[in-house]
Amino acid sequence: MNYMMLLAYDGSRYSGWQVQGNTENTIQGKLEQVLTEITGESVEIAGSGRTDAGVHAKGQVASFKLVRAFACDELKVLLNSRLPKDLAVLSLTEAPERFHARLSAKAKTYVYRISTSPVSNVFEHKYLYNFTRPLNLAAMRQAAALLLGSHDFKSFCGNPRMKKSTVRRLDSIEIIEKENKITHKADELELRFTGDGFLMNIVRILTGTLLQVGTGEIKA
Amino acid sequence: MNYMMLLAYDGSRYSGWQVQGNTENTIQGKLEQVLTEITGESVEIAGSGRTDAGVHAKGQVASFKLVRAFACDELKVLLNSRLPKDLAVLSLTEAPERFHARLSAKAKTYVYRISTSPVSNVFEHKYLYNFTRPLNLAAMRQAAALLLGSHDFKSFCGNPRMKKSTVRRLDSIEIIEKENKITHKADELELRFTGDGFLMNIVRILTGTLLQVGTGEIKA
Repeated sequence: MNYMMLLAYDGSRYSGWQVQGNTENTIQGKLEQVLTEITGESVEIAGSGRTDAGVHAKGQVASFKLVRAFACDELKVLLNSRLPKDLAVLSLTEAPERFHARLSAKAKTYVYRISTSPVSNVFEHKYLYNFTRPLNLAAMRQAAALLLGSHDFKSFCGNPRMKKSTVRRLDSIEIIEKENKITHKADELELRFTGDGFLMNIVRILTGTLLQVGTGEIKA
Repeated sequence: MNYMMLLAYDGSRYSGWQVQGNTENTIQGKLEQVLTEITGESVEIAGSGRTDAGVHAKGQVASFKLVRAFACDELKVLLNSRLPKDLAVLSLTEAPERFHARLSAKAKTYVYRISTSPVSNVFEHKYLYNFTRPLNLAAMRQAAALLLGSHDFKSFCGNPRMKKSTVRRLDSIEIIEKENKITHKADELELRFTGDGFLMNIVRILTGTLLQVGTGEIKA
């Protein structure tokens, strides 16, 4: 039976999604370990994106196959009762036999959050990059538009030894100002990248590049 | 000159608001230390509420006096540049000479957040009490109504040796169901207490009592 689940996690404690050699503290590794404990089967889980170390997820899709059929509701309860507090299964459903979270993905959205205020967001500072220099949002949006479409993003890839294709399709980059709920000031910037696939570290590298355009250091 | 400030803090690392003996890690203590570093004056800060250990603040009012007059904007920037990430000054303004954050307070609102879902809120579990048993909200609201008005709340006070008056006025207790933004399920309960003053640990004791009513263990 093929299963699809929607995951949320705080990636702070983990070395990213993918199991790699002896690195035990990965999202995939933790999920596979708990699934094996529950089912007795050796399981391999595919994530729609192999998130980098320190990246969090609000709704990451993953899929896996089991020989024995489990009731979805029961499996979801068992997983959540054994997973740590920073990793949760939001939903779990049966999926068509040929569904694969990564290969079947049409698009993915990554968000980079920036605090533009010198006043700390005391509850979420862990999830925000602090950048208080004035930013020209119009220039950033102009530069963002040039990145859309299919391009070879090799120069924005964090892995210099990447052997596979570095061509990806970027569908949209939204730059959104957010208002603080207490002070009612626009003190946060959200950069939302949607595309078919993302190279290693590309979201943070694109964000850094767009910030350089925002300060006038480089031109669109 | 008399000053009023609006504070936000994550209380996790602190032993509450009030400076007490050798306890250095208090909100009041940290603020006074930084203010003295900046102004060279010995400062005493009054909070509208002396929050208990582990209690957070989204908008706690505090006041203090300085001999030398400082520009408010400048003082706010200096404070935020020296305070830790979990303690922030949201606003700082001049106040009438007779204003005192605690003595002038008309009412205060405390919120207790409860996660009612077996699925962890991966980003906010630190700020939520987990309680997954079914709750009769109507019974809880009925019991909450009986607590409103001026009463001697001695039996709900966490300090058994409290010598001063334990009479307080509760203006409202709201019990609000919150929807999870990802799953769209009501998986959080917010208990909002508004009144003129709060005894030690009273919010968590009242919350525990209302939960017992909710499960049917005790009657309104």
